[in-house]
Amino acid sequence: MAHLSFRVDLATGGRLGPGKRRLLQLIDDLGSISAAGRSMGMSYRRAWLLVEEVNGAFREPLVEKMPGGSGGGGAVLTSAGRDVLAWLADIEAKAEAAAAVSLKRLDALAAERPKSATAHD
Amino acid sequence: MAHLSFRVDLATGGRLGPGKRRLLQLIDDLGSISAAGRSMGMSYRRAWLLVEEVNGAFREPLVEKMPGGSGGGGAVLTSAGRDVLAWLADIEAKAEAAAAVSLKRLDALAAERPKSATAHD
Repeated sequence: MAHLSFRVDLATGGRLGPGKRRLLQLIDDLGSISAAGRSMGMSYRRAWLLVEEVNGAFREPLVEKMPGGSGGGGAVLTSAGRDVLAWLADIEAKAEAAAAVSLKRLDALAAERPKSATAHD
Repeated sequence: MAHLSFRVDLATGGRLGPGKRRLLQLIDDLGSISAAGRSMGMSYRRAWLLVEEVNGAFREPLVEKMPGGSGGGGAVLTSAGRDVLAWLADIEAKAEAAAAVSLKRLDALAAERPKSATAHD
C-alpha cells in the first residue's frame, strides 16, 4: 500500500526528515556515529555535522558522544533522543492511519507500470 | 507550529511529493506548464518531464495539454488531476491533525535558535 514519507519542519525552523531519523536510529542500534554514517554511505564528517545539527536544534542534545578509545569513542542516544525517535514513530503511524482512505484512492488510480521516477519528487 | 511535509510513495513505485504537487497546483492556477515551471524556477523541459512522469504514474492523465497557439498552448488539470490534488490536501490535513500531539512535543523540545540547516534533511 502507499506509504507516507515525511519531514517535520519545526516551528523554530529546524528540520527533521527521514535522513536524520535514520541516522539517530542507527546510532542507537550501532553505538557509533561513524558506523551509523557508514551504513548510510555517508562520510564520518557528514554524519558528525548532522549530529551537531540535530543536537543544536533541540534544548538538550539527542546524541551523547562518549570519550576515548582508539576508534574515537562511541555515541549513545540521550533520553531526549529516544523521545524524539518515539515521537517520530508515533507521527508516522498516526499520519498513515489518518490518511489511509486517500492513500488507498491514490493507489487505486495508480498505473500498474509507472514510468521510471526522475530525481525530483 | 511544527508542520509535516510529505511525499507519497505509491504501491506501484510512483512518487508524489511536494514538488509535483506544487507543479500540479500551479498548472491549475496558471493554465500553462511553462508558466507553472517558471514560478518554480524550473526549465520548461524539466516541468514537461515532470508532467509526463505524473501522467505516466496514473491510469488516466492528470494534466491535459491543449494544442496550438504561438506560446505552445495551455494545459489544464483533468478531473483525475483535481481528484489527486484533493486527496493530497486531505492527506495533509488529516495527517497533521492526527500527529498534532507528537508535533507539539517536538516543538516544546526544540531550541529557540537552531543552528542553520544543511542541505540534508
